[in-house]
Amino acid sequence: MKKQASNIVKAGLVQQALVDNDKQSNWQHSALKIEALVEQGAELVLLQELHSTLYFCQQENAENFDLAETIPGPATDFFAALAKRLNIVLVTSLFEKRAAGLYHNTAVVFDRDLGMVGKYRKMHIPDDPGFYEKFYFTPGDLGFTPIKTSVGMLGVLVCWDQWYPEAARLMAMAGADILLYPTAIGWDKADDQAEQKRQRDAWQLIQRSHAVANSLPVMVANRCGFESSPLDPEDGIVFWGLSFIAGPQGEILAEATKDEETSLLAELDLKRSEQVKRMWPYFRDRRIDAYADLIKRWRS
Amino acid sequence: MKKQASNIVKAGLVQQALVDNDKQSNWQHSALKIEALVEQGAELVLLQELHSTLYFCQQENAENFDLAETIPGPATDFFAALAKRLNIVLVTSLFEKRAAGLYHNTAVVFDRDLGMVGKYRKMHIPDDPGFYEKFYFTPGDLGFTPIKTSVGMLGVLVCWDQWYPEAARLMAMAGADILLYPTAIGWDKADDQAEQKRQRDAWQLIQRSHAVANSLPVMVANRCGFESSPLDPEDGIVFWGLSFIAGPQGEILAEATKDEETSLLAELDLKRSEQVKRMWPYFRDRRIDAYADLIKRWRS
Repeated sequence: MKKQASNIVKAGLVQQALVDNDKQSNWQHSALKIEALVEQGAELVLLQELHSTLYFCQQENAENFDLAETIPGPATDFFAALAKRLNIVLVTSLFEKRAAGLYHNTAVVFDRDLGMVGKYRKMHIPDDPGFYEKFYFTPGDLGFTPIKTSVGMLGVLVCWDQWYPEAARLMAMAGADILLYPTAIGWDKADDQAEQKRQRDAWQLIQRSHAVANSLPVMVANRCGFESSPLDPEDGIVFWGLSFIAGPQGEILAEATKDEETSLLAELDLKRSEQVKRMWPYFRDRRIDAYADLIKRWRS
Repeated sequence: MKKQASNIVKAGLVQQALVDNDKQSNWQHSALKIEALVEQGAELVLLQELHSTLYFCQQENAENFDLAETIPGPATDFFAALAKRLNIVLVTSLFEKRAAGLYHNTAVVFDRDLGMVGKYRKMHIPDDPGFYEKFYFTPGDLGFTPIKTSVGMLGVLVCWDQWYPEAARLMAMAGADILLYPTAIGWDKADDQAEQKRQRDAWQLIQRSHAVANSLPVMVANRCGFESSPLDPEDGIVFWGLSFIAGPQGEILAEATKDEETSLLAELDLKRSEQVKRMWPYFRDRRIDAYADLIKRWRS
């Protein structure tokens, strides 16, 4: 069943709206969408961040730790079996219970009949009103390490990581062939339309910029739909969808709508990354003699 | 004549087409455009890369070292006097002769009646067909240090630096209020239109991404017009213009056309950078404990 890495990877992603915390039902729903992509030829599929449940970080509530699960556990069992049955590489996201009182926001990768081949624990953890992630997730301790799969080395990062060029760069320097971002980002309903547009555009362009800076394709799967706040049903987050797949010059290859469940599929030519790097060889010229302060908090 | 830094900076830039190496005439032409911006209120003006002459790096020709000049020298005398007369902060670019056989691609900043207040020597030097810069320019040795002026701390970088998130980050971490890129980039006439669009889009988005990643406004002044190659008059570079000014979320505030001399003016509200940083505080969460490999050449 194992397949040699080829130059062309048929890559898909699933953008979903969640309505409840029924994991079994949500997994089945994802599985149907994944199967549909596989019927179109997908051999790599990316799911959005924390796709098993509603985005529970809208409040700090200790009961939500019940939503976490171990690795291995029911979620990894389900998706390992699915990846094996469909003979694909599958990138999933889950709320990992590592120990009582110790949780992570973790992406898990399955490779055909090999089962789980690696995981990435979200390194940069956000915390702002409606996104209280620092309450739930301990920052990752696995570093920025791509995961080797039969379709190539996957530089899997998660949501808030997307704002950090450092993270993408370190994945690229460790040999990543593709950068992948499961995310869950949306608007505060109080923001006006101009502010919403600036946020959405900034979000898309920072991730396309990682493609450009590293001459690598980028896949971003975002959540869509409205999820009301448990603190105030009138309030909540409008997840802005707009999942996309970009090539190694940041060019958009496929893009979802902002409010509908959408599956995307694109052919990623991994050989083109090297062609782009030959033309604009950024890695040749990095001034590593002058970058020491990047590991400082601030230069003062 | 000195003015205290205020929150609003009226910032302008000049995009020019060059037709010869007559420096006096080219400086006068720039001066007229700068004066027009000042009449509209500009207190900060950015010129494009190597604005005194044609882009001489289309070939490796030792005679072109005659185009270089010392700092101080005729160019810095001219622009220091202009900045003083117009009472502005002026960011210029020149081919610096530091010693016989030692040259840099250098941006020089003048501040009202203070004269030259700082310079930046291009740190990342490109070299590809038609852009033979490694022949001419020794990589900079002044590091990524913003220049203090009466309108704020200027993070001046030059052209090829624009592809490196590291450079922008280091300027931001050293307190830059605005990132500024004098550039000279264009197409090889042999590239097809789709490739031209990908290159131009990548160039704009990587620079807008530095605004996003660092919550700082960005100014980019690019050359426009066709300059034929001294090696083959049929060949040459179509400089693609499209100079722009972006706010701290990467939003475009002003943008030039691709082929006409254009001057841009925008109001930069430096206070808004802090508002953006309060909302999306990327610097709070950098994983400096996990960034050590950024100063490696490659992670293997």
